[in-house]
Amino acid sequence: MSSQKHSDIQLSAIRGIPEVRPGDDLGWLITRAAETQGFQLADGDIVVVAQKIVSKAEGRLVNLGSVTPSDFAREIGSRQDRDPRLIEVVLNESANIVRMDDHVMITETKHGFVCANAGVDRSNVSGKDWVALLPVAPDDSALLLKNRLAELLKVNVAIIVTDTFGRAWREGLTNVAIGVAGMKPLKDFRGQHDDHGKELSATVLAVADEIAASTGLLMRKTARIPVVIVRGVYFDHREGSAKELIRPKDRDLFR
Amino acid sequence: MSSQKHSDIQLSAIRGIPEVRPGDDLGWLITRAAETQGFQLADGDIVVVAQKIVSKAEGRLVNLGSVTPSDFAREIGSRQDRDPRLIEVVLNESANIVRMDDHVMITETKHGFVCANAGVDRSNVSGKDWVALLPVAPDDSALLLKNRLAELLKVNVAIIVTDTFGRAWREGLTNVAIGVAGMKPLKDFRGQHDDHGKELSATVLAVADEIAASTGLLMRKTARIPVVIVRGVYFDHREGSAKELIRPKDRDLFR
Repeated sequence: MSSQKHSDIQLSAIRGIPEVRPGDDLGWLITRAAETQGFQLADGDIVVVAQKIVSKAEGRLVNLGSVTPSDFAREIGSRQDRDPRLIEVVLNESANIVRMDDHVMITETKHGFVCANAGVDRSNVSGKDWVALLPVAPDDSALLLKNRLAELLKVNVAIIVTDTFGRAWREGLTNVAIGVAGMKPLKDFRGQHDDHGKELSATVLAVADEIAASTGLLMRKTARIPVVIVRGVYFDHREGSAKELIRPKDRDLFR
Repeated sequence: MSSQKHSDIQLSAIRGIPEVRPGDDLGWLITRAAETQGFQLADGDIVVVAQKIVSKAEGRLVNLGSVTPSDFAREIGSRQDRDPRLIEVVLNESANIVRMDDHVMITETKHGFVCANAGVDRSNVSGKDWVALLPVAPDDSALLLKNRLAELLKVNVAIIVTDTFGRAWREGLTNVAIGVAGMKPLKDFRGQHDDHGKELSATVLAVADEIAASTGLLMRKTARIPVVIVRGVYFDHREGSAKELIRPKDRDLFR
């Protein structure tokens, strides 16, 4: 029909996934929604899933009505003019407080990720007093979904669980990978040579984060698009962990 | 032919761009390469261009043979076991040294970007002693290319000049935007509401960085793909600057 050559990478939003509830079978919900819109998953596709629906399916929801804030949480809450019960939940999910001011808390989660409020979030959760936490083990969540899609659709896909994080030095949030299955999140080019025969130095690319970031372009905060399929990316299909993306402090000159 | 519905976002690598030399007309080189592979640029496309070819076209190349290192550069060079002439060039391109150890220098460039070696890079530059610097004004480079493509092809596209930066807390490099034209690099969702009527807080998305990151998946270090066209992204077409992506220190809790 068109003279346009095929593109190298395609991103397809999966729409029509209903409000996810604890215990829901995400693999089945994704399969049904993809089918409804005529999208066929294929081997080598990367299924990128918003953390929020993974957390909901896993029941990682807390009603603030059930939370009794500590004195420390009350102190922060009063300083930041925020609900001390929310602060209590953030503290419970954190291994360390990285920094805080009068508005925001940046913490290191128990997984080792550094983000605002330990990833605890009120948005896109139904019920005024409910908040969602990050999955306990996002790599495991990813692997479970990978295996379920293999079972339902006989496809060998990679999975990325993504959340939207702030970062140092630069304004604005981007989607990053917090869980992976069926892929190595980093691609190491060290020892390889460029087109002019010079050895490439310090070139380890965060492939999983670049894929996650691309899906942030479709997973708008106000659009109900919690799943995006990325097709055409060349990646290392060996099993990996999103924890490989966490930089040890002694090697981090950007802090 | 296929039952597959159209994808939402497509990335297309432009191949066959020759080695770029000072004074080359990038708009013309891109136009010709796109034509050769049967790719037609369209209004609303985002043309993402690797910093390296922009720098080459603008003659931002230095032969280390012409550089006399200062005592300070010699000292760092000896400590890091690196060419003191390269260090001298890095220092010249830097407004501040953010941190350094025995291997790497993280500096703030004169534009305000924070990256390794002020973006000075030997890879993919021909000639053993030649290095490439970042463009002096990457927004201007982007606008020049936007206008040239409008002239040549009668298309209204946005441009992103991208480079590959490291970051705090996370391993691996990702592509980010260092220059933009024809787009706002940030998308502000504050004041808008989610699907459950809750106001979205602290939600400013770094759209230009997410687009740049997506193209990092095709601009492999060893592949000769310096231009990727991104189609299907919804973005704000007003004129912006990549400097909007630089976070002021007093608002940066992630450092």
